[in-house]
Amino acid sequence: MRLLRKRGFSNIRAFASSRSAGTTVEGIEVEEAGAGALVAGDLDLCFFSIGTELSAELVPQAVAASALCIDKSSAFRLDNGVPLVVPEVNGARASANEGIVANPNCCTIPLAIALAPLREAAGLRRVRVATYQSASGAGADAMERLRSELPEEHDLRMDWALEGDEFDEESKIRAETRKILELPELPVSATCVRVPVLIGHAEAVWVETEESLSAATAESILDEAPGVRIEPFPTPGQAVQTEDVLVGRVRQDPTVENGLVLFVVCDNLVKGAALNAVQIAELLLGARALV
Amino acid sequence: MRLLRKRGFSNIRAFASSRSAGTTVEGIEVEEAGAGALVAGDLDLCFFSIGTELSAELVPQAVAASALCIDKSSAFRLDNGVPLVVPEVNGARASANEGIVANPNCCTIPLAIALAPLREAAGLRRVRVATYQSASGAGADAMERLRSELPEEHDLRMDWALEGDEFDEESKIRAETRKILELPELPVSATCVRVPVLIGHAEAVWVETEESLSAATAESILDEAPGVRIEPFPTPGQAVQTEDVLVGRVRQDPTVENGLVLFVVCDNLVKGAALNAVQIAELLLGARALV
Repeated sequence: MRLLRKRGFSNIRAFASSRSAGTTVEGIEVEEAGAGALVAGDLDLCFFSIGTELSAELVPQAVAASALCIDKSSAFRLDNGVPLVVPEVNGARASANEGIVANPNCCTIPLAIALAPLREAAGLRRVRVATYQSASGAGADAMERLRSELPEEHDLRMDWALEGDEFDEESKIRAETRKILELPELPVSATCVRVPVLIGHAEAVWVETEESLSAATAESILDEAPGVRIEPFPTPGQAVQTEDVLVGRVRQDPTVENGLVLFVVCDNLVKGAALNAVQIAELLLGARALV
Repeated sequence: MRLLRKRGFSNIRAFASSRSAGTTVEGIEVEEAGAGALVAGDLDLCFFSIGTELSAELVPQAVAASALCIDKSSAFRLDNGVPLVVPEVNGARASANEGIVANPNCCTIPLAIALAPLREAAGLRRVRVATYQSASGAGADAMERLRSELPEEHDLRMDWALEGDEFDEESKIRAETRKILELPELPVSATCVRVPVLIGHAEAVWVETEESLSAATAESILDEAPGVRIEPFPTPGQAVQTEDVLVGRVRQDPTVENGLVLFVVCDNLVKGAALNAVQIAELLLGARALV
């Protein structure tokens, strides 16, 4: 809501479950969501941030009522006909939608932003990523739990659902990165771990490129890339409230030819979520204005 | 000191700087260390846990006074004639010493314990590791800082010294793993990160083996390996005060032939430090008794 206001959106309405209806968010009274509200609604553009099950139910109703929907859940991300968009990477794909544009996973967005310029420069052969994800990625309750824990209780957590031998979070990173980069066979292996940090996701990334690329060249390519800021030792604390993805520790992977290692950090609540969705909206509205 | 008592060592003396001399640790009055004390000393076996510079100065003096020295610093780890020992992996090397046996880095110990059985089964081609290291690895002050921080201040840290484009911690992991496993060319790439956890180091590990090894076979080999306990989702919290290295999330690396992914955790103060040193002492005393 704050980002929308800040970036000039007006005539904003807020919908939530009956539990929150009647409360106020950013000065706007929350209305009860539900089929009626969305169908009845004079809604040009809807942002959904309500979880996969509810998105699967409500988004199609809003689409049927001619609203353009930007959905933050994983309900539609891999569907054909639903662009999965990181504006800096594949913004041109956003307009080819059938009413829904999906916002990627909070780890996929910074990863795609860091990988796209390397793909342009040297091609991508394979990617391995270990995540350091913050509590805010698991929601307000997880943040509250971290705040109320004693330091002795701080621990790493692995709080995702298993799909075979990996977490759904890990398979999302692979599938979504492939779709965004339009590299449907790109080999990606992710290990996802939550750390006792409130805000900011970090990723240790090993990339193998098709062609040789020195660490210095890779860093200067990333430095020029949209949405990237080079920092020597980026941390979540540095990323909080920052719109850019911070990339640092760019170095050669000594174990393999054409290998690079990087450390990627972003504010999972800003570029990892809300900002990316608002940027998608700006793209879509720009395209509409041109029609 | 507690481990020594628990495991039957007696006639224990404690030495420290003049700052601590006169205080009591585990019921033993601390004496002032320094050349005189060590040279004068009737000391059969000395454990040094005093940092690299002081070890470089004092350990040779104790050796000259015929004490057998087990050193926890990095001062001698890579020296020829100094065995670098993880008892479960290369305990047989401990006796071939010239007065000093070195205790490896707290991340190298669990990594070597997890890699050694895989080397036996299928050979090692390359290793990549992202660490999640606890505050206790940086000492009591870092633990105190974490305890006194607000949750909002918790951040990832990278508090090691740079050597070229990597941290000394990262080059130690490579060099020490090569020495312990006796694979002097083993390609190893490490990214080291400190997390806001008080005790317990974790590592996300990608291993490529020379020969094919299924994840199920790898897990059952690790399950039989000395010093390893298989846990589905090992965390530092589970590892605290545990003597074993916890290994879990053993799965195929889908990006490469003969690739495995694992998650390795240990109590960096127990198996990552004190316990490993005491086990080395037990090996050495056993070997002496046999002479």
